[in-house]
Amino acid sequence: MEKWRNNIRNIAPYVPGEQPKEKDIIKLNTNESPYPPSPGVRKAIEGFDADELRLYPDFVCSRLKGLLAKQCGAKESEVFLGNGSDEVLALCFMTFFNSKKPVLFPDITYSFYDVWCSLFDIGFKRIPLGEDLRIKKEDYFGENGGIVIANPNAPTAIYMENGDIEDIIKQNEASIIIVDEAYIDFGGKSIAPLIHKYDNLVVVRTYSKSRNLAGIRLGYAFASEPLIQALEAVKNSFNSYTVSTVSRLAAEAAAEDTEYFEMCRGKIIKTRENTVRELEKLGFETLPSSANFIFTTHKDINAEELFSYLKENKIYVRYFKKPRIDNYLRITIGTDEQMEKLLEEIRRYIK
Amino acid sequence: MEKWRNNIRNIAPYVPGEQPKEKDIIKLNTNESPYPPSPGVRKAIEGFDADELRLYPDFVCSRLKGLLAKQCGAKESEVFLGNGSDEVLALCFMTFFNSKKPVLFPDITYSFYDVWCSLFDIGFKRIPLGEDLRIKKEDYFGENGGIVIANPNAPTAIYMENGDIEDIIKQNEASIIIVDEAYIDFGGKSIAPLIHKYDNLVVVRTYSKSRNLAGIRLGYAFASEPLIQALEAVKNSFNSYTVSTVSRLAAEAAAEDTEYFEMCRGKIIKTRENTVRELEKLGFETLPSSANFIFTTHKDINAEELFSYLKENKIYVRYFKKPRIDNYLRITIGTDEQMEKLLEEIRRYIK
Repeated sequence: MEKWRNNIRNIAPYVPGEQPKEKDIIKLNTNESPYPPSPGVRKAIEGFDADELRLYPDFVCSRLKGLLAKQCGAKESEVFLGNGSDEVLALCFMTFFNSKKPVLFPDITYSFYDVWCSLFDIGFKRIPLGEDLRIKKEDYFGENGGIVIANPNAPTAIYMENGDIEDIIKQNEASIIIVDEAYIDFGGKSIAPLIHKYDNLVVVRTYSKSRNLAGIRLGYAFASEPLIQALEAVKNSFNSYTVSTVSRLAAEAAAEDTEYFEMCRGKIIKTRENTVRELEKLGFETLPSSANFIFTTHKDINAEELFSYLKENKIYVRYFKKPRIDNYLRITIGTDEQMEKLLEEIRRYIK
Repeated sequence: MEKWRNNIRNIAPYVPGEQPKEKDIIKLNTNESPYPPSPGVRKAIEGFDADELRLYPDFVCSRLKGLLAKQCGAKESEVFLGNGSDEVLALCFMTFFNSKKPVLFPDITYSFYDVWCSLFDIGFKRIPLGEDLRIKKEDYFGENGGIVIANPNAPTAIYMENGDIEDIIKQNEASIIIVDEAYIDFGGKSIAPLIHKYDNLVVVRTYSKSRNLAGIRLGYAFASEPLIQALEAVKNSFNSYTVSTVSRLAAEAAAEDTEYFEMCRGKIIKTRENTVRELEKLGFETLPSSANFIFTTHKDINAEELFSYLKENKIYVRYFKKPRIDNYLRITIGTDEQMEKLLEEIRRYIK
């Protein structure tokens, strides 16, 4: 064995959904938006002077922070930016989870949380969801080194009322509570305004879903000033310039186009409700979704086999071979046309 | 005090050079290129279909890795990409420095190295440069948990012969040796081809300097396959998609335009030599530079005062208030015109 082997880190990474190269795939596996970014984004990129790229990006991103702050009546100094919400979450874990007590999150949730805990040597405890696959707030009232709640949760798509999360915060004055709101715009109400009531609350958001901009890698967080300052210090100890110039401009343009944003999320919600109804007619039971995806199961159909059948027929959805959810499929909401093709394939499969 | 205070991390971050907003500043303080990116980059951005941004970026970046691999006769699987070379270096520190022995680097070098060590709880030892501000290879022959050499070194700009670095590698079979070649294109010869001879060598490069693309945040590394695999696993445990779609396209276009790259670095080298000669006439002593900046001192002039005078006159250079180098200025090489203005101001100051 090479002598340097013992020095290097050996770790099992997070595995993202497949990104097929073929263009004729119906891609319902990574919760991207089926709609293009706002026309303002296109304009910003077309009008961009590439000569600016010789310089480092804007270090502060004051304008973008100001636009985002407006979403929840916050100040620029209560906004943090990063290279996708995964980076924002990773930096939050590094900054806020430094006690000896375990960090708590559900057993069924975004599967990156335990990967970050392993990477940063943070102890953690998975709290089982209830029988109905919902988070039970009382399970988070004990001692802990921090709490992470995805709301709506993934891959269940189930939304938890903010009052319940507030109860968790009230019981945990000594911990930082991270609420991962990647999917909040598809049916939930953001808890972000509560950062002014609870200085230990961090709310993480992304451009990858409801802003139709997974390609720019832009995530952000709202929190009290002391938490944002701590996060900025860790970020600046890791990588000073994380948001590229073009990504910042695209994010600004998208933040300004509220009307387009409302239209897209409205369409996705409507398509989701139609899809759920049609699946029900076929015998599927779908968990109540407040996200841009659904989590669905059928008592007579093997989910893994249906997953493979759909893939062979060029429709990609997501399947997780994990206890309690191994007969569910997670299906991203596409356009009406894409969902109709999905339903057709499922009908064909059932016959 | 808030009860959550003890849980969060308190750290002193790296402080980058100032990024003034005013447009009439002559900016010679952060080692950016004075020349715009290659015309191909402009074309790639102009021709870009913003609709693509709804999707996650290319996870593998096979084409870009292939183009970069050619630089040193490597394979795609020997290339790693990141969001700027700072991120690449941060991930390298996290991946490769996990022994109990201290990591070694010079006392005068890129000031981010000790910040990363602090962030990741890595022990380190600063090895003093020689009287001539050069790295003495023999100082790196003892036991250690890893070695980092910037070549050319910063802020001295002094280049170390690859034969000397190879001697260090030979003496350190059990450590990973990182060579940070941010400035290699301005007078040095890359050590990257040696990754095929030494599987414990990592060579880190950037688009921010010689590729005129600080704004896209793109850094990369060459190393043996097992090291790249370990690095990819850590990256995928931190943030799966670090390179945005537009940044990847710009980087591909720049990598293809070898002629433009050669022209720009040729101009910078020529301007540097002129500047050094002119400064010599004024009594400055400049360390031998192989970078796109110079490190210069004058026995009768207080560097800090000259720094302030230049700043008042809208010329930004860099000053480090640190032992041994506190009477030096680090000056980025701009265009001939910018350097002439700098020299004029310095002549005025001396009178």
